[in-house]
Amino acid sequence: MYIRAEHEVMAKKIFLIGAGRSATTLIKYLLNELTHQDWSFTIGEQNVALAEGKINGAANAKAIVFNALSAEERALHLKDQDLVISMLPAHLHTDVVDFCISNKINVITPSYVSPEIKAMDGRAKENGVLVLNELGVDPGIDHMSAMQIIDRIQNSGAKLQGFESFTGGLLAPESENNPWKYKFTWNPRNVVLAGQGGAAKFIQEGQYKYIPYQKLFRRTEFVEIDGYGRFEGYANRDSLKYRETYGLEDIPTIYRGTFRRPGFCRAWDVFVQLGATDDSYQIEGVENMTHRDFINMFLAYNQHDSVELKLMHYMKLDQDDDMFEKLVWLGIFDKEPIGLKEGTPAQILQRILEKKMSLDPEDKDMIVMWHKFNYELDGKSHELHSSMVCIGDDHEETAMSKTVGLPIGIAAKLLLTGKLNSTGVQVPTKKHIYEPILQELAKNGVVFREKEIY
Amino acid sequence: MYIRAEHEVMAKKIFLIGAGRSATTLIKYLLNELTHQDWSFTIGEQNVALAEGKINGAANAKAIVFNALSAEERALHLKDQDLVISMLPAHLHTDVVDFCISNKINVITPSYVSPEIKAMDGRAKENGVLVLNELGVDPGIDHMSAMQIIDRIQNSGAKLQGFESFTGGLLAPESENNPWKYKFTWNPRNVVLAGQGGAAKFIQEGQYKYIPYQKLFRRTEFVEIDGYGRFEGYANRDSLKYRETYGLEDIPTIYRGTFRRPGFCRAWDVFVQLGATDDSYQIEGVENMTHRDFINMFLAYNQHDSVELKLMHYMKLDQDDDMFEKLVWLGIFDKEPIGLKEGTPAQILQRILEKKMSLDPEDKDMIVMWHKFNYELDGKSHELHSSMVCIGDDHEETAMSKTVGLPIGIAAKLLLTGKLNSTGVQVPTKKHIYEPILQELAKNGVVFREKEIY
Repeated sequence: MYIRAEHEVMAKKIFLIGAGRSATTLIKYLLNELTHQDWSFTIGEQNVALAEGKINGAANAKAIVFNALSAEERALHLKDQDLVISMLPAHLHTDVVDFCISNKINVITPSYVSPEIKAMDGRAKENGVLVLNELGVDPGIDHMSAMQIIDRIQNSGAKLQGFESFTGGLLAPESENNPWKYKFTWNPRNVVLAGQGGAAKFIQEGQYKYIPYQKLFRRTEFVEIDGYGRFEGYANRDSLKYRETYGLEDIPTIYRGTFRRPGFCRAWDVFVQLGATDDSYQIEGVENMTHRDFINMFLAYNQHDSVELKLMHYMKLDQDDDMFEKLVWLGIFDKEPIGLKEGTPAQILQRILEKKMSLDPEDKDMIVMWHKFNYELDGKSHELHSSMVCIGDDHEETAMSKTVGLPIGIAAKLLLTGKLNSTGVQVPTKKHIYEPILQELAKNGVVFREKEIY
Repeated sequence: MYIRAEHEVMAKKIFLIGAGRSATTLIKYLLNELTHQDWSFTIGEQNVALAEGKINGAANAKAIVFNALSAEERALHLKDQDLVISMLPAHLHTDVVDFCISNKINVITPSYVSPEIKAMDGRAKENGVLVLNELGVDPGIDHMSAMQIIDRIQNSGAKLQGFESFTGGLLAPESENNPWKYKFTWNPRNVVLAGQGGAAKFIQEGQYKYIPYQKLFRRTEFVEIDGYGRFEGYANRDSLKYRETYGLEDIPTIYRGTFRRPGFCRAWDVFVQLGATDDSYQIEGVENMTHRDFINMFLAYNQHDSVELKLMHYMKLDQDDDMFEKLVWLGIFDKEPIGLKEGTPAQILQRILEKKMSLDPEDKDMIVMWHKFNYELDGKSHELHSSMVCIGDDHEETAMSKTVGLPIGIAAKLLLTGKLNSTGVQVPTKKHIYEPILQELAKNGVVFREKEIY
């Protein structure tokens, strides 16, 4: 057995769970660090070939078959690690985080802190473990970039009156090659279900406002970003909880939303009104169904009228409405088999949309983030905008992969090099966390531009 | 101690749980039977004065304080009964039915068979107990009156092609004294939440059709009933399950709905679109809120525009639209305190509506039921309508109380006089159950009129 000499520094061990699309840039970042850090890097994946392809023979890195749902495999592979990065779907982090806390291993995830993980805060602190969550783009870069300006405004003695923030995962302008100016650059299921599960809640000038799902896509706001044109935003589910997250309990206006290109929401609302985004029940007879049959299920029965005319009448669309062009382009009126054996309306709609709205290899995506701050300083009102646009290099190194992966990679480096000293269940809203990450993000091209309005 | 002689017939004991509004006619019916039957009749009520008032000193009847949720009280008071009638809210029947089956006591309820109660069928049969459910008006009289005609049509050798059925709890024509032609004649909460919890599902000419909540009140159908004018109907949640209930697995068209007077649904849809019927979250700041504030919460913020104009614009109402008159009449724009400390949108809306839509003592209610049967006999198409209208005597002996109470009272009599021999968990779709009940309902004024269309 090899006995380590006392003066030797042990090589730090990183374990990444999941090598999917959003991990591409993260893996690249860590492989690059490996060239000058004394680290070892393991990727645990069900699809080990995918992980091996991304490692591409790099030294000190390897891929193994790993099932995060297996307690045995967690015990076997995670117990000697110094840092675990979990890119699992949000609801699957719990057991991993639990294991890591018990074994004094730091963890990073890009996901929202679940109540289960929040409840582990005390144990994490006792064990001296940092569980750093919400470290992707949204949540993640949004927290950090907003808090940097909020802290600056408040430290100047100003009073913050309003905060609005929008993020969108969109197409780069040169790839806006369809009438929706949209393709799926992220989990399509989340796009289809967006806004469901409760009214959108926010506060404006001290008045609480609630928007139900059936009106969500008709209550949009427009925002112009220099050099990138106009965007429309719809409200996210719960803006109110950000008052606590950002320490803005008394702020009279807080609103968070999602960007699309103008016209998207009005057309998307057709699917909402039809009931085609419903995920709560199984449709009958999916196996032999066409796109056209699917749409017709939501329209009144008539032996002779066309599906097109029934839909136009139901949705009160003029025949020259450009929304109609968007719908036709999607092929929803086509007598094409759906190609599923069963499904909810949402699952079937997703299937139909994926046929047209998936990224082509030459498509580039774009992440757009925009914050608006209203504050009073010395009796004068001010408005400040801050925006970030990140464009993907190609269909692998996407803007989504960059903006999710870079903050995680940077935080991993800070942690392993002893520059991030914190314990407990955290999100990156504190200066000692966000400041070094934002600095290095800027060096990697993720830059916020500020604009004083008055 | 009194020793009963062998030849004596023991007096039958009936126990009624609940003496609320819908039990008035039932109690009256049973008290009348008591004058010539050797029965004893006990009402168990939390509000014993209410029950005593309805008994009004009648012989062989008494009221006791009874909490159906208490296992001790159930054991104490129910164990010697021959028949228990449970008028509890639907979700509270389970423990009562369970106890009755174990103690070989027959039970009647007006509620839908829950999965828990359905699962007790085997035990009920083993113990020789009848658990007769869905014996009110809807469900209840709808089952019986429809099955009587369905059996008749099918026994004639005809093939049933379509079945549609609507029921409405409305105002008698002489009491239609508001612009909605509607007041609460039943649980207001159910009216506010009607249609929520999943898309309405039906089948028409072999095509499955789905209507989401956000379109439910815009997809109405009109029905004319001789002597009573026009009604509009919206679809009930799940018409498809009635194929199994009625033994119509292959029927190409089946649709069940709820009646309102024309214009109600279009105006009600304003509340649906606003999000004011949502029961899934608590509103902030209810205590100091007016009706007007409540409506304004669902409208965009603007410092100057009136709530009225914002609503008209949002809902695309012309200023002379008679829907606007309906809304103004309800007082939703009034600066009147809501009078609740907290609540969901649905709870607050209910509170506002109850101020105007509650029955006055002089108001009479009306139950309207209408079935449509399409069938083929000897190669010829036929259409048959069957309708029932029941008008309340006053605000106590309502049509709702009559149509819920009479079938239960009649079934109780049939059971206790040995004329209803059946065991297991049942609904009244079988001829030996529905036939004698419908016969006696007719004698009590609950009459179906048939009309052959072609």
